[in-house]
Amino acid sequence: MKVRVLIRPKEGILDPQGQAVERALPALGFTGVESVHVGRLVDLEVADPACVEEMCEQLLANPLIEDYEVQVDDGGRA
Amino acid sequence: MKVRVLIRPKEGILDPQGQAVERALPALGFTGVESVHVGRLVDLEVADPACVEEMCEQLLANPLIEDYEVQVDDGGRA
Repeated sequence: MKVRVLIRPKEGILDPQGQAVERALPALGFTGVESVHVGRLVDLEVADPACVEEMCEQLLANPLIEDYEVQVDDGGRA
Repeated sequence: MKVRVLIRPKEGILDPQGQAVERALPALGFTGVESVHVGRLVDLEVADPACVEEMCEQLLANPLIEDYEVQVDDGGRA
């Protein structure tokens, strides 16, 4: 089953990549941009999606400083 | 308007982070994991979501080796 994991810096944790992008965009002529946050995306195929949360805790994310969100793509079978 | 950009290595482009995760998971006792790909996630608030594709081309992604997907969160107003 296809699973997508979205990993973001926790609120209040420094996000230097996001800050760099937020500063760079106006310099390129893009205005009206706010609240830029850069995180990671992990796509994987797993036999048992119930394991993915544990994978995030142990390997994919750093739960001290990152939040993660697991999205299971069940192909519309709900 | 909130926009989420998902950036992934193009098909056929080496994805060493994905390979590392794919090799590490069985060592941690997780089986049945395949096709791991690691990419980036950019959340941002923009006044005009139509600009985001151009931001990807110029700054957020490297279009030579990465594909990007722009998701506009219109708050259900469709």
